[in-house]
Amino acid sequence: MTKSKLISPKLLFIGFGNVGRKAAEILISSKDKYPNLAGFNPSIVGIFTKTRGAVVNQNGLHLEKNFNEFEKNSRFSKHNPDYSEMSVDEAIKKLDYDILVELTTLSIEENGEPAVSNVMAALNRGKHVVSANKGPAAFSYQELHLLAQKNDCKFLFESAVMDGAPIFNLYRNNLKGCKVKGLSGILNSTTNFIFSEMESGKSFEHSLKEAQRLGFVEADFANDIDGWDAAAKIAVLTNVLVNVSITPFDVLREGIRGITVGQVQNAYERGYHLKLVCRAFYKDERLITRVAVEEVPDDHIFSKVTGSGSVLRIETDLMNPIIIVQENPSLIDTAYGVISDLLEIGTAD
Amino acid sequence: MTKSKLISPKLLFIGFGNVGRKAAEILISSKDKYPNLAGFNPSIVGIFTKTRGAVVNQNGLHLEKNFNEFEKNSRFSKHNPDYSEMSVDEAIKKLDYDILVELTTLSIEENGEPAVSNVMAALNRGKHVVSANKGPAAFSYQELHLLAQKNDCKFLFESAVMDGAPIFNLYRNNLKGCKVKGLSGILNSTTNFIFSEMESGKSFEHSLKEAQRLGFVEADFANDIDGWDAAAKIAVLTNVLVNVSITPFDVLREGIRGITVGQVQNAYERGYHLKLVCRAFYKDERLITRVAVEEVPDDHIFSKVTGSGSVLRIETDLMNPIIIVQENPSLIDTAYGVISDLLEIGTAD
Repeated sequence: MTKSKLISPKLLFIGFGNVGRKAAEILISSKDKYPNLAGFNPSIVGIFTKTRGAVVNQNGLHLEKNFNEFEKNSRFSKHNPDYSEMSVDEAIKKLDYDILVELTTLSIEENGEPAVSNVMAALNRGKHVVSANKGPAAFSYQELHLLAQKNDCKFLFESAVMDGAPIFNLYRNNLKGCKVKGLSGILNSTTNFIFSEMESGKSFEHSLKEAQRLGFVEADFANDIDGWDAAAKIAVLTNVLVNVSITPFDVLREGIRGITVGQVQNAYERGYHLKLVCRAFYKDERLITRVAVEEVPDDHIFSKVTGSGSVLRIETDLMNPIIIVQENPSLIDTAYGVISDLLEIGTAD
Repeated sequence: MTKSKLISPKLLFIGFGNVGRKAAEILISSKDKYPNLAGFNPSIVGIFTKTRGAVVNQNGLHLEKNFNEFEKNSRFSKHNPDYSEMSVDEAIKKLDYDILVELTTLSIEENGEPAVSNVMAALNRGKHVVSANKGPAAFSYQELHLLAQKNDCKFLFESAVMDGAPIFNLYRNNLKGCKVKGLSGILNSTTNFIFSEMESGKSFEHSLKEAQRLGFVEADFANDIDGWDAAAKIAVLTNVLVNVSITPFDVLREGIRGITVGQVQNAYERGYHLKLVCRAFYKDERLITRVAVEEVPDDHIFSKVTGSGSVLRIETDLMNPIIIVQENPSLIDTAYGVISDLLEIGTAD
């Protein structure tokens, strides 16, 4: 039996960084600006941050007022009538909500925690979960997926890889008759942007700073340039699409530190482009996952995915390869990934 | 209310050309060769052809025996115990089946008939329809879609555009919060293949013959080279994704007749590639659909979609553009598009 769809789901936000605030902005402006979201009216019962306060209202927070307060003060203040001293843990376990929206940042050192535990606590209560954080599916996908199935709820994370570009949804809905035989792609915006800039002669440091200014660098930029973000993404993709159980630590990984403008331009002059390429493939029946700097020839589609763009190529037993490209995504794409998951759970067909 | 899913749907095939026979081949071999299809066991109650006989068995045809007979004799013979003299019209209106599988060829002159009427007759009985024929959705999408909704059944046609690459499914499942603002793509394999060959110096005639040998040219090759196939595809895409009601006759259309090797190579030397590009866009709030030969610059992704490959770029109000590329599809991709639709209707989640 499947639960009936929710037209006005109650949401609990854990994390209110760039993605959470952009999602809030879309929900606030939806009726005028985004006509296709007009029928979707979630109510937000709590917003929790790590160090910037929390607000709770079981009747539904006034999203616009709370958003504006946060934009102005960079935190929720104790003068806010909805201000709460509740802990995140208590909120997830006790509040009345339909969907946990997990928006904390990826922690490799902590094996995806505390996000993994947050997701598990919600699923244990039979609550749906939408996560923009790669951690839970990178470290514990199979366990969380089975728990969600057992409790008849959904665990979705479309924005964890390629933002709003539909990858997991596509797999669930369109590739169910196929067996996935291999994956390859460019999945980290920061390193792709840096290589594009270096090709035009800019230094590594200058390019990284520009990427930070544009807002798509991870909170800890080492996650990007040491390949951890890419490793987490190929781990999530492989766990879901190839149906295995690996973690980012199982991925052969190299980053882009130490690559010089000279190396990038030397490749370019020979008709190649340096790219941080993620792969999952079988070698002698053994599954290998890898993140490595590769020289991509100029006539390959991957070489035309520049700037902050991403691309994924999926090989299956039944079709010739399908490639999905995301052209220069920005924050709104990640936020749409979250909203798309909410719609999947929260609206009638 | 949604009807419960069918694990072993009864199928009625109208048409048994390349796509139908490849789909039959996949279904026959599925258990060993395609593990993810193992749980899907449709029963085929009838296969109708225009001039090569028909077979009917309400208890389910022996698919392998009938397939082999057809491969051997290029028709169903009167000696076949399941041979039937029933008309297509009668079969659609009287036989007991769950899903009509409409696999006849596109007819521009006849406004998509008789496929439009076939689909309508099935939907009128509350039967699901899967069509690999572009005609019904190119000429009568809105009418057929509303009829399907009214009678609580599905009208699916994934393989009509870009074969098995999930376009309509993606739209239904993943883009429901977005408004589609523009479409562009290379949607006709034959002309794309011909331009790729001409770039390497081969003549138009030689390239067309090679495309015919490889099996992806329309029954009437004029449909490809005069842009009708592309016009039908952009009409289907626009009808569904932009939610309007146009026909291939509303599409501004040019074909590739008369383009010389010299023109193709001259563009190439200047860093451009000739491509037959389909577009739907707004100009002064008016929707325009167009098929035209364009010079695509070498650094554009479209220029790397060569041979029989296809590509579609979707612009929406909420995300930066998403691009889907189908790499060198063959017949199995079209057949998978049909099977993917059958799975969408016919299996439990």
